[in-house]
Amino acid sequence: MRMITFEERKKRALKRLAETGADADIIEILERINSIEKFFTTSSCSGRIVLLKIPHAGSKREAKFIAKWHRPVSAAEVLHAIDDSMRVEGCTGECEEIWLIEQPPIIHVACRDMRSAEEMLKIAYASGFKYSNLKSLKHFIVEILSTERMDVPLCECGRMLCTSEYVEFVVLRANFLLNRAKKKLKRLLENLWTGIL
Amino acid sequence: MRMITFEERKKRALKRLAETGADADIIEILERINSIEKFFTTSSCSGRIVLLKIPHAGSKREAKFIAKWHRPVSAAEVLHAIDDSMRVEGCTGECEEIWLIEQPPIIHVACRDMRSAEEMLKIAYASGFKYSNLKSLKHFIVEILSTERMDVPLCECGRMLCTSEYVEFVVLRANFLLNRAKKKLKRLLENLWTGIL
Repeated sequence: MRMITFEERKKRALKRLAETGADADIIEILERINSIEKFFTTSSCSGRIVLLKIPHAGSKREAKFIAKWHRPVSAAEVLHAIDDSMRVEGCTGECEEIWLIEQPPIIHVACRDMRSAEEMLKIAYASGFKYSNLKSLKHFIVEILSTERMDVPLCECGRMLCTSEYVEFVVLRANFLLNRAKKKLKRLLENLWTGIL
Repeated sequence: MRMITFEERKKRALKRLAETGADADIIEILERINSIEKFFTTSSCSGRIVLLKIPHAGSKREAKFIAKWHRPVSAAEVLHAIDDSMRVEGCTGECEEIWLIEQPPIIHVACRDMRSAEEMLKIAYASGFKYSNLKSLKHFIVEILSTERMDVPLCECGRMLCTSEYVEFVVLRANFLLNRAKKKLKRLLENLWTGIL
């Protein structure tokens, strides 16, 4: 069986990206990376704050998103989304938890060879993405990733575990981390233009 | 200048490990990995729950450990460590925060070549370490890492942000995640013996 080439995989990935689109904060970066022959992007997220409903056992596999924001949020928005979720679904019998999670930007880049992967990693590190790594050795997939992350439980079994003052503090910190991570996206875009590529 | 060989680097790493030792939960794994010619371990942690004091700006670079446990903890231990820290240091003027952080096990393995790195990654994934990756392309350093992680703020400026009931819940969850991650260490050890190496 003929192996699918890098160029064919790139063509498919670009078609998929054109169909699905990407977050506004990250689209310029994807376009810049995809304009370079030896790279293409396979998936990405510009960084977000989410509310996740998790079964009591703590398995994120069966988790369900209550809300997703790719921007800073207010405590009122968070409390409102939690209220809505409780009102609509109530307690489903199984004792569920709601967690607020802040996730940094993540970009997966397929690279033509090991040398290209090294170049992409160098630029990612130089832009502050300290958790960047080579995810797949088979297809030289570089994961561009930074460190800003929070995982905070807020509710259990349909009741708040903490005060709204605490939610305000957590939201403040989550926004701070999200903004810091988003600034790194700007550095990454600059370095992708001025870098050694 | 002569390049230092894999064997020389391994010798140095084993000497360092003999001097510094390692966590009880992980030592058997390190010994097994180091018994295989084409691998050696460079650093590791068996998973832990820590209390970290962080300057207001949120920079972990200037963070200071208040307490570290490589085992499940009780809420009383956590509250006691926070109390102690506040009593001894008080508020230093700058508005500091205390966070409880649960971190999964992490092992860095230097591999002789790309093929060995692929084998080690395969075993890591099969043992449940889903965030494993190739950290350094220069020296083929595989990072064995799983997903269990919590980062929860508890105090600000010398005052608790939440109730002791909330601390109890957070500790319960942190212990659950730590135990789950530690079980993966057992699977990893088994797979290192029965695997394809």
